[in-house]
Order: sequence, then structure tokens, then C-alpha cells
Amino acid sequence: MKSILNYSHHLLEEIISPGETVIDATCGNGNDTLFLSKLVGDTGEVIALDIQEQAIDNTDRLLMEHNCSNVSLVLDSHENIGDYLFHDIEIGGAIFNLGYLPKSDKSIITKGESTVKAIDTILKYLKKNGRIILVVYYGHEGGQDEKNTILKHVISLDQKQYSVLQYGFINQKNNPPFIIAIQKK
Amino acid sequence: MKSILNYSHHLLEEIISPGETVIDATCGNGNDTLFLSKLVGDTGEVIALDIQEQAIDNTDRLLMEHNCSNVSLVLDSHENIGDYLFHDIEIGGAIFNLGYLPKSDKSIITKGESTVKAIDTILKYLKKNGRIILVVYYGHEGGQDEKNTILKHVISLDQKQYSVLQYGFINQKNNPPFIIAIQKK
Repeated sequence: MKSILNYSHHLLEEIISPGETVIDATCGNGNDTLFLSKLVGDTGEVIALDIQEQAIDNTDRLLMEHNCSNVSLVLDSHENIGDYLFHDIEIGGAIFNLGYLPKSDKSIITKGESTVKAIDTILKYLKKNGRIILVVYYGHEGGQDEKNTILKHVISLDQKQYSVLQYGFINQKNNPPFIIAIQKK
Repeated sequence: MKSILNYSHHLLEEIISPGETVIDATCGNGNDTLFLSKLVGDTGEVIALDIQEQAIDNTDRLLMEHNCSNVSLVLDSHENIGDYLFHDIEIGGAIFNLGYLPKSDKSIITKGESTVKAIDTILKYLKKNGRIILVVYYGHEGGQDEKNTILKHVISLDQKQYSVLQYGFINQKNNPPFIIAIQKK
């Protein structure tokens, strides 16, 4: 059975095509940004945000190592994603890694309200059959609150407009991450 | 994103090979039995159980229509599955549809304790990387009890020996079914 990382990438590569514009809402150390950069190719664009300079620097370094020139790096919170999107743009897909930046300050975390705001903004621009993938880490302080806020929100999304899938391993210790995938109908 | 039916079949076809012995613990109207019969082919065997004669009859008819001769139909509860397995047999995979027989008496339902007993019996015979797929319908009377009993049990399965995945759509009304997949390590 696919790991959380592999399944999150599988859900993205199923629906993203070369030339599209996609979003990494929380670029962290840049691994998902790099994955998205390869999926959309030279004719596509990745908009990658993070609130931490260290994350932007790490991602920038990784992208340079792989000669990726199709990524716009933005030092800002994902809740402001709307500021970086043209009004008529179509988004192919997006990924969020919720929690804190690995090997960094655990007090700097994504928060439920700003994540919900970012989700709702991206949904407006998302193509038909496009997907937003949330990888929910919640073992840290504040993680349960964010998890609950997000679950409450996505459960309420209209089933006529969206499918919301939950995928996760339920017999593991230490609050392993799980996936929420939102697909626009 | 794959529907519950399609994903349950996907998880089975990923790990079942021709020639293997597999189990449909609740054959119902025979659709999963037919699917398994094709997966294991002429050199394999499906053991299909149901507690209701109507289910066995329906399945028998469907299998005859498709010229399937590799299925052993058993009129008994899945909790007695051990009675129908040779002591050294290896099981490739198994599927359970939990709830009541569609278009039939809704008071005849699978129950948590007997389902747990059946799961534990099959786990003993399951091959390495084999899977048990549970499709959990729980909207009927008694359904929540069975769901809770099973979730409690599978969450407690040792993560060193088993992966337990939950897959389901969480923004749908009317208690749609979800999947629990147990893979032996």
C-alpha cells in the first residue's frame, strides 16, 4: 500500500499535465516543489510559498541543483495566496504539508484558519478535476487544533461540487500524517 | 479519485496472482466473488461464504452465467471460515462487505464479534503482503456498533506485523461505506 508521501504524489501526477500552473502552499525543504516542477515542465509554473526564509532558501538551493527555472518562490503565508494569482488563472493542483518545518523551530506552525482560507482561495481557481492535497501532520503542539479545524471545514464541502477523500494508516503510533484530497467536480 | 468499489478491487488485484486461494467472506450477490474468480483463474480457488441461502443462490447463478468453476460456495457465517481451510493453506487475499444483503432482509447483518473472529482467522493463513479488504457499510441499525468494534480491533493490530489503511470519502451524506485494508508485512 502506498506510503503517505507516495500516495500524495500519485494523486497529483494523476491530474497534473505539463504546462499547467500549480501551487506548493508550504514549500518547506522543497521536495514537493521539485516534484511539481518536474510535472509541469518548462512550459508550466509552480508557485511555492512559505512563511519562513529558511524554507525558501532550502527550496531555492534544491531547485538550483536540479536546474529548475519554472518556480516562483514567495516568502509569505499561504493565506495570502490570492495576492499572487492572476484573476483568470486556472490552477491544476496544489499541495499543503501542514505542521512545522522539519529540523526547524517547532513553534512556527501552520494554523487552521489560515489554512482554510488558503484552501478556499485555491478552490476558486482550481480546474475541473483538479485536486488540493493536504498532508496533515498533527503530533506537535497546536496540531490537533489545526487538524480539527480543517476536518470540520472539508467535511462541510458540498458533495455535489467536491469529493473529499481521507487516506491514512490507522494502526501506527506517534500520530502519523494522513492525507485529505479535495477534487473539484 | 477511485470509488470505494474500484479501490477495493484495485487493492486486491495489486496483490493476487493466478493460482492462489482467496476468500470472499460475504459473497452477497456475487460481484466480488466473480471478480476474485477471474483474478485467480482456472488454477486458483475462491472460497465464498454467506450466511443466507439467497446470497449463495444469487452468487451461484452469476458464476454459472460467467462459466466460473473455481469457486467453492459455503452456506455458513464467515466466523467459521477456519472450518473450510486446510491447516497449511496460504491465502492470497480476502474481501468482506459488511452490512446487510442488498435488496434483502435488513435485519440479517454482519456483526462485529464474528467479523473480528473471521479477520483474525484469515490473518493466520494470509501470505506475506497479502491483504484483507473490509468494505464497511454502517448506515443500517447495528452498523455503528459493528464499525466501532472493527475499528477498535484493527487499530490495535501490531504495526510491525500489519499495515492498516483507511480510505473513504468524508463529505458525503447518508453514511457512505469506507475501506479498511489490512496488509501483512
